[in-house]
Amino acid sequence: MTDKTPVTVLGLGLMGSALAEALLAAGHPVTVWNRTPAKAAPLVAKGAVQASVPDEALAAGPLVIVCLSLYSDAGDVLAGASLTGRTVVQLTNGTPRQARALAETVTGRDGRYVDGGIMAVPQMIGKPGALILYSGDEAAFTEHRDVLAALAEPRHLGGDPGLAPLYDLALLDGMYGMLAGFYHGLALVRSENVEAAEFTPMAVAWLTAMLRSLPAGGRAVDTGEFGTDVSSITTSQVAFPGLIETCRDQGVDPWYLLPLRDLLDRAVAEGHGSDGLARMVTLLERG
Amino acid sequence: MTDKTPVTVLGLGLMGSALAEALLAAGHPVTVWNRTPAKAAPLVAKGAVQASVPDEALAAGPLVIVCLSLYSDAGDVLAGASLTGRTVVQLTNGTPRQARALAETVTGRDGRYVDGGIMAVPQMIGKPGALILYSGDEAAFTEHRDVLAALAEPRHLGGDPGLAPLYDLALLDGMYGMLAGFYHGLALVRSENVEAAEFTPMAVAWLTAMLRSLPAGGRAVDTGEFGTDVSSITTSQVAFPGLIETCRDQGVDPWYLLPLRDLLDRAVAEGHGSDGLARMVTLLERG
Repeated sequence: MTDKTPVTVLGLGLMGSALAEALLAAGHPVTVWNRTPAKAAPLVAKGAVQASVPDEALAAGPLVIVCLSLYSDAGDVLAGASLTGRTVVQLTNGTPRQARALAETVTGRDGRYVDGGIMAVPQMIGKPGALILYSGDEAAFTEHRDVLAALAEPRHLGGDPGLAPLYDLALLDGMYGMLAGFYHGLALVRSENVEAAEFTPMAVAWLTAMLRSLPAGGRAVDTGEFGTDVSSITTSQVAFPGLIETCRDQGVDPWYLLPLRDLLDRAVAEGHGSDGLARMVTLLERG
Repeated sequence: MTDKTPVTVLGLGLMGSALAEALLAAGHPVTVWNRTPAKAAPLVAKGAVQASVPDEALAAGPLVIVCLSLYSDAGDVLAGASLTGRTVVQLTNGTPRQARALAETVTGRDGRYVDGGIMAVPQMIGKPGALILYSGDEAAFTEHRDVLAALAEPRHLGGDPGLAPLYDLALLDGMYGMLAGFYHGLALVRSENVEAAEFTPMAVAWLTAMLRSLPAGGRAVDTGEFGTDVSSITTSQVAFPGLIETCRDQGVDPWYLLPLRDLLDRAVAEGHGSDGLARMVTLLERG
């Protein structure tokens, strides 16, 4: 027997399985349910109890972690359930709008709702460096904080359940931009038969150095003081046609650079040429 | 008197002035020329000799650093000059095509040509961490390598003068992608009144962690083995509509995400859904 909180995990994809495994490793009684029952076998071998229907899993304890493949699946599973005394922690990727709607479903059935955005791949769960952002019912979060800490560093962002998916998407946004730039740059040098093994270390060093400029950009956005003596929008705007022409010369699709060029052109046309690139934030917010 | 190589610097914008200053600080006799003569005053005060016309500056020594505001200015200045015994190091931002054309101009007048891409802002010149990528005449580069080291760490990429601007543009490409993603993500969280001061440290930590994935992505491109057990194109493709919908819900222009979505859709349609994101490189190369 253990005095650790029993936890229910609904959904045993790669991520759900990693979550259940981390909870088992931390000594929690874990009840699992998955639409395809066979996926539970490795967890049952490690001590999990397999429920045959969601209601049975929901009855097993006060804390319910949801990691189904689609956000809508969670609504389907929870809409008819009795959730009195239950805290539902929804970790499926979703949008703020979806999180707010599901929170209404859960609180409408007397449950408490916490949404989470997992800033990690399954391999990182339960290990240092993994972060999960939470938002929604703060009392429920605080009550289960120690349990959630077995999954990843838990950070609560505020009472609006939409905040965690919003941060999650915003951080993914940053990642996609970085990956787009890196892979696009790699395509450019590959057009002259340069190997990634040569280009990548240089790119990593360069991007690491450029990351140091982000706090100054953030401060410019917070204060509204966009002047710069380092690199202005005009400097970039002047460089962009050559960059795009070179893509075409080298047979590489200009791709994500075209909307960047358009925004730089607009920024200059609207009189922001001498501002730093952080000014782009305010131009995007009108969209 | 000094036995250090005399250096000529043509163009005294922010970057040209920083270059001339670093050379003066390293003890080189420096002759400068700028279209607007007044900009030379701070350098003359530190010991530079001001030439009144480009030919006078070109006569001052064997090494000529060009940092005019436009690439075409360099052609104008050099096209009629005598360049015998001169090494022209062109550090104005340009394209591979421009570098190859200017190299022909210079070698056609018996000069040696080296092109360079400065991976630094003016404030970093002459300090640790600054990098300048060079390509073109390798013997000329090697002869002047120690002089160039006073500006930034010098790295020679190959004999094709177009390589340095190509790498330069590819690295800038990576930087623009990272900045686009960061600022766009910042616009997203700001739509719920989150301050950059809160979001930025999280974004920097997250992007720093994500940078560690680039070498594996590079290896996938070099080997053509794109399979992944971490994060597939399909995983991203499934997440993108929610990301773009959230931008619209929150009043943020989806911007650079739209061409990313289109490429992910195309990748899945062409059967690459189970590959990692590095596969995007080969799809861009058809462009």
